[in-house]
Amino acid sequence: MTSITGKTRLFGILADPIQHVQVPRRLNDHFAAAGFDGVMVPMHVRPDNLPAVVAALRGMENLGGVVVTAPHKTAVLALCDDASDVTRKIGAANVIRREPDGRLVATMLDGEGFVGGLRAEDRGVEGASAYMAGAGGAANAIAFALAGAGVARLTVANRTRARAEDLRQRILALHPGADVRVGTDDPSGHDLVVNATSLGMREGDALPLDVSRLRPEQLVCEVIMQPRETPLLLAARERGCAVHYGAPMLAAQLALMAEFLGVGKA
Amino acid sequence: MTSITGKTRLFGILADPIQHVQVPRRLNDHFAAAGFDGVMVPMHVRPDNLPAVVAALRGMENLGGVVVTAPHKTAVLALCDDASDVTRKIGAANVIRREPDGRLVATMLDGEGFVGGLRAEDRGVEGASAYMAGAGGAANAIAFALAGAGVARLTVANRTRARAEDLRQRILALHPGADVRVGTDDPSGHDLVVNATSLGMREGDALPLDVSRLRPEQLVCEVIMQPRETPLLLAARERGCAVHYGAPMLAAQLALMAEFLGVGKA
Repeated sequence: MTSITGKTRLFGILADPIQHVQVPRRLNDHFAAAGFDGVMVPMHVRPDNLPAVVAALRGMENLGGVVVTAPHKTAVLALCDDASDVTRKIGAANVIRREPDGRLVATMLDGEGFVGGLRAEDRGVEGASAYMAGAGGAANAIAFALAGAGVARLTVANRTRARAEDLRQRILALHPGADVRVGTDDPSGHDLVVNATSLGMREGDALPLDVSRLRPEQLVCEVIMQPRETPLLLAARERGCAVHYGAPMLAAQLALMAEFLGVGKA
Repeated sequence: MTSITGKTRLFGILADPIQHVQVPRRLNDHFAAAGFDGVMVPMHVRPDNLPAVVAALRGMENLGGVVVTAPHKTAVLALCDDASDVTRKIGAANVIRREPDGRLVATMLDGEGFVGGLRAEDRGVEGASAYMAGAGGAANAIAFALAGAGVARLTVANRTRARAEDLRQRILALHPGADVRVGTDDPSGHDLVVNATSLGMREGDALPLDVSRLRPEQLVCEVIMQPRETPLLLAARERGCAVHYGAPMLAAQLALMAEFLGVGKA
């Protein structure tokens, strides 16, 4: 990284917990490779304090923007001034750009990142059937991206079933012909099995789905990057499944994040 | 600097303008030398936005604190939760520590830094007569420090004379026997001549005092670091005076700042 001066453009990542985040290192490497005078720093913000912190970002003139991760992806959207139509339909955001006048513009890149990460490892999703656990911010983005990428069938399972049903309805509003179902914790009968919850990030978390139903022909996918080997992936491998780690989802987003944040522009 | 991760402790500097600040580079070097996993970044905040930004700092759990510089040193004090008695009497602060519970504790190190910077260059102030232009945050700190260090006579000059008189009264309340006067723009008859205003930082600024009255036996001192050679110092040298740059005042403060901010503690 280059030395930080008064001219260095500032970026942050909002998260709780914060210690595991990998975006600062990855994006700072990206800045250095691009010869861009910017720095991304961790900002540990609890949910109660999110509104005050986001409001204050408008008043930091040298802030280029922030990346937003768990548990703030859904809550942050309403605190921003603008977002694309798809981002509003997803109902969550993971990157916010600060315009020169202080306005905050949100977008959601997790879905593109997840599908891009699969493609980067030659895992196509078109025509596949997909099971997804979760209905939070990242899950919403991934569900819309899977539907947009042409999965044959998508099953959404969530502890609070109403949130899965709500997600289903919003996808159908955008993709009227899609086969979207609300499921249980049983992932049987799907080519792809995706954990899009944060279960597995903290020690002692419950498993996000019933691993006893996993079959060797299924590809089990994580969105969690830290720890790399979640209990779900360990159980999946024990049952003979191929696994897809959380890291490619971020790797596929870095260039998109940098572009959205205006990195490299004068 | 070491690589920034989610565990890196965050520090900022609040300023307007921001481009000239040298504290990030200096303090980041200090962190690296101490093996401390922290990073200081510039935060460009205009006066109108200061209250919202300072309030939000309470909600950044991994924030160790901020350094505060022009034009916020006076305004920031009332936005903090606690400060030492001397800092309250000075009425301004330049470093804020964030306690684990979010409370913001302010201190003012400019005065110690200024006197320490002079001493580091073998310029004693005890028994000297001093003329100071300015009555803002840094000026208040320097005036209290000069009085505390035992100057024989201190003259304070300020465009708004009432602010100089107010500063004089506050010094006399702490040092009842001191010889403190309110002066004009004429620095004649003093050993030390100190610019403690921000005049000279921006191109086209007026001179902070009547340079035509400077005499070769006077030492002319700056608090401005950028530009290094202010119009005041250039004029002083043309008139045969010795000069004292702005940089030593920061150099003498770095270790104090780091200590106050808890650098190196677990």
